[in-house]
Amino acid sequence: QPVTLINVFDVPQGALEPTIRFWEASRDFLARQPGYHSTRLHQAILPDARFQLINVAVWESPEAFQAAARRMQAELRVPPPPGLAFHAALYRVVRD
Amino acid sequence: QPVTLINVFDVPQGALEPTIRFWEASRDFLARQPGYHSTRLHQAILPDARFQLINVAVWESPEAFQAAARRMQAELRVPPPPGLAFHAALYRVVRD
Repeated sequence: QPVTLINVFDVPQGALEPTIRFWEASRDFLARQPGYHSTRLHQAILPDARFQLINVAVWESPEAFQAAARRMQAELRVPPPPGLAFHAALYRVVRD
Repeated sequence: QPVTLINVFDVPQGALEPTIRFWEASRDFLARQPGYHSTRLHQAILPDARFQLINVAVWESPEAFQAAARRMQAELRVPPPPGLAFHAALYRVVRD
């Protein structure tokens, strides 16, 4: 059953562009993995937002995402910008 | 131009159900406001996720959402659960 990955990025001051490039490298890798459906990187329209970047992606199943994430950790050679923190977790829609 | 509201809830231990009820009261109010398109409340599938609830909604424009939020603050009589923190901001998709 499809699942939604939401990744909340805690972007250090001045690291927006490098974080987007890091995100693009990860997206290019993950988009080739089995079970990938789609992804959307959201950028805050105002600079005072607590979280400047939030990614919302859809995967075929939790297992498909977890396998892809393990592969990425083992193979992707692109380091995250210094000081970047992020909170990635799998979600299901419970109300709309 | 449509905009995405993402609200990241920092839910205190044991306050998941009251937070969902608070969210439902807010959704019922906001869904009647001009410029409202849609909303989806996401719940983490695992208890160790940093953010247990994240809402992703679509509005016709930033102005439509800001007017609705001001009205809600003035009129809605449902208090949030004690200790609940949330980070709401408007976003646009910059990559997919």
